[in-house]
Amino acid sequence: MYLCAMIYLKRKEKFCCAHKLHVPEWTDEKNKEVFGKCANPNFHGHNFTLEVTVKGEIDPVTGMVMNLRDLGRIIKDEVTEVVDHKNLNLDVEWMKGKMPSAEVFATEIWKILESEIAKFGARLHSVVLEETDKNIVECYGN
Amino acid sequence: MYLCAMIYLKRKEKFCCAHKLHVPEWTDEKNKEVFGKCANPNFHGHNFTLEVTVKGEIDPVTGMVMNLRDLGRIIKDEVTEVVDHKNLNLDVEWMKGKMPSAEVFATEIWKILESEIAKFGARLHSVVLEETDKNIVECYGN
Amino acid sequence: MYLCAMIYLKRKEKFCCAHKLHVPEWTDEKNKEVFGKCANPNFHGHNFTLEVTVKGEIDPVTGMVMNLRDLGRIIKDEVTEVVDHKNLNLDVEWMKGKMPSAEVFATEIWKILESEIAKFGARLHSVVLEETDKNIVECYGN
Amino acid sequence: MYLCAMIYLKRKEKFCCAHKLHVPEWTDEKNKEVFGKCANPNFHGHNFTLEVTVKGEIDPVTGMVMNLRDLGRIIKDEVTEVVDHKNLNLDVEWMKGKMPSAEVFATEIWKILESEIAKFGARLHSVVLEETDKNIVECYGN
Amino acid sequence: MYLCAMIYLKRKEKFCCAHKLHVPEWTDEKNKEVFGKCANPNFHGHNFTLEVTVKGEIDPVTGMVMNLRDLGRIIKDEVTEVVDHKNLNLDVEWMKGKMPSAEVFATEIWKILESEIAKFGARLHSVVLEETDKNIVECYGN
Amino acid sequence: MYLCAMIYLKRKEKFCCAHKLHVPEWTDEKNKEVFGKCANPNFHGHNFTLEVTVKGEIDPVTGMVMNLRDLGRIIKDEVTEVVDHKNLNLDVEWMKGKMPSAEVFATEIWKILESEIAKFGARLHSVVLEETDKNIVECYGN
Repeated sequence: MYLCAMIYLKRKEKFCCAHKLHVPEWTDEKNKEVFGKCANPNFHGHNFTLEVTVKGEIDPVTGMVMNLRDLGRIIKDEVTEVVDHKNLNLDVEWMKGKMPSAEVFATEIWKILESEIAKFGARLHSVVLEETDKNIVECYGN
Repeated sequence: MYLCAMIYLKRKEKFCCAHKLHVPEWTDEKNKEVFGKCANPNFHGHNFTLEVTVKGEIDPVTGMVMNLRDLGRIIKDEVTEVVDHKNLNLDVEWMKGKMPSAEVFATEIWKILESEIAKFGARLHSVVLEETDKNIVECYGN
Repeated sequence: MYLCAMIYLKRKEKFCCAHKLHVPEWTDEKNKEVFGKCANPNFHGHNFTLEVTVKGEIDPVTGMVMNLRDLGRIIKDEVTEVVDHKNLNLDVEWMKGKMPSAEVFATEIWKILESEIAKFGARLHSVVLEETDKNIVECYGN
Repeated sequence: MYLCAMIYLKRKEKFCCAHKLHVPEWTDEKNKEVFGKCANPNFHGHNFTLEVTVKGEIDPVTGMVMNLRDLGRIIKDEVTEVVDHKNLNLDVEWMKGKMPSAEVFATEIWKILESEIAKFGARLHSVVLEETDKNIVECYGN
Repeated sequence: MYLCAMIYLKRKEKFCCAHKLHVPEWTDEKNKEVFGKCANPNFHGHNFTLEVTVKGEIDPVTGMVMNLRDLGRIIKDEVTEVVDHKNLNLDVEWMKGKMPSAEVFATEIWKILESEIAKFGARLHSVVLEETDKNIVECYGN
Repeated sequence: MYLCAMIYLKRKEKFCCAHKLHVPEWTDEKNKEVFGKCANPNFHGHNFTLEVTVKGEIDPVTGMVMNLRDLGRIIKDEVTEVVDHKNLNLDVEWMKGKMPSAEVFATEIWKILESEIAKFGARLHSVVLEETDKNIVECYGN
């Protein structure tokens, strides 16, 4: 009989951003054709939910994969405080010049969190970003 | 023994907008002091949930206070289609020159829906607007 | 300074039913025209959420308006056990010959619960029935 | 035609507590008989959701009934910081000697919040306390 | 250091169906014994939530794995419009003669969506079907 | 073209417990430093959500991976009835002497459920434990 072999710890945080999807080289018509309402020139916005999952061993003394306070602080310092109530096209340094689709946004969050989490002896497993309760993106490592 | 004396029908719809809270006559500092992160000059945004409640008699044949299809269509035509994926400060005619706080936004939606719903023999009872799952505004008639 | 003057206790339960909306005297075309997809002859169904709210005084010894176990048992015995996994048009005695709209269904549940709750010294305040997370009916006494 | 006549602002916060329901003058058997599993001598606990609703006029300049930051800070300072991750029977000064039922807990929160909110020119309208997603208590003023 | 290696896009849609679980070759008693309340002869129903996840590369220009509008349209045309407000035992061509359990229903949805999604250069990764908020089925490819 | 290759069945249940995180060999200060508010000596508590996922073949006659009634009964008998409204540090035999972190609690639930589920011809795939809606632990086999 095998025991539970992998253990993951997840933390969810929320934040609110404005953004628009548009390719600068394209005409407004083409942007609208491809991105629909998401191309609105004056932006629109979302309440994003970010779910960060880390993988590790359970510490035999504390019973924890990683201290949730540390995980929470990393997410807050590196992501939430930087993007909350901001415009993803204009206000966030590491999104400048990038398409602020949920897919690209999630992969940029992955890049930022990965090394920070590694400092605490755990490994980033997934970044899930809910743009609305119908549209969700998931990022996994290998 | 008294029977159920009042019957209400509710419909929830969702939409996504950008906005910012700022008073044009104020300095950026004063706006930031009063509105905090909500004053971000380049906007931020939300997934709003709108809950519209109407009051009426139950039709003895159809068993309905109001046809949900009609209620849904009114909300869609008058509100959702107009504000979804738009900027409340810049793109919505009936919000121009008004502070796009949840309070003001909800009262403007009330004004628009009230007469439309009255055409179908029901009466608007409340407009509830969820800006985030922590911040909610409710509007009632008398 | 006034204190909290009214205290309410709520209990939510869920159940699953099939139903269809149709007026036997009408043609299929008229039923479809009025009730749309809800008139599908072979029925459709929902996961209903029922929220029952009672009003009363807080018992100074137990700190309770009404024992939640009693409230839960009434809802279960009188409603949930009777309607869960049933067809509202065909299987439920007290819905026979009635239009199984959320409005009518909620008022019938009101009639059933009112006297049962009164036996425990509390008073039924409202019956809320969620048919879907977008369509909700509320019933109040006076 | 009347306009929206009343406007309410709601704020939701969450916290986690341990408690048990028991009357010290009663035997363990009687406590178990009345309170069921809630009488477990070594306590049990919940993730509570607190929803505070205030009523007021919309400020014509800011568009706000009350600054959400102030409302949030009051709830945090007066309630959340005091009760979160605490034992309601043993650790909270203003619950000492009181039955920590959701009903009594909600009315005590009402007493604490009412005068604090009045200082900001708004009026406490309701305190809603969710103990679980099935069991909810609502407190209203008059 | 490795980067996010896999990216998934999810879309959730809801619909309402009636169904019953029964094996025609069995007696009513045996059906009731095996399927319990789900064997009710006159059907019961659910609000289903369907979550479709696709896998692909992020397009370097649009920042998208697949246009959500296309994904939404496929789900609507192939599944939602076909099964919403229908009886899974009687009204849906591709469920005829099959047991309408969540497991079988999810695998049939998989078969339908897989080739449609492939036309857009993405690959179906999973089909998740929530029958109630307690009962969920997940289907994965390999 | 490949078909859906793996099928999973999930069941969610809820229960309420008190617990505290503390290492007996440590001082109160060290416990507080490491576990923060979770080290409160008089305990705190949560509404836990347990999600159990099993893997198997779809039975060609019943259309089921495993009878949900059996899965529900195992979860109830082995976990819910044992831990609901209990103190994880003091009242639960199989948690005695163990750190009641979500991580350790989830792995102990895994050990208990695995062999029970195997008796029904299915295989335990994952145990997910939500302590709050922000903090979640997932356990997988291999």
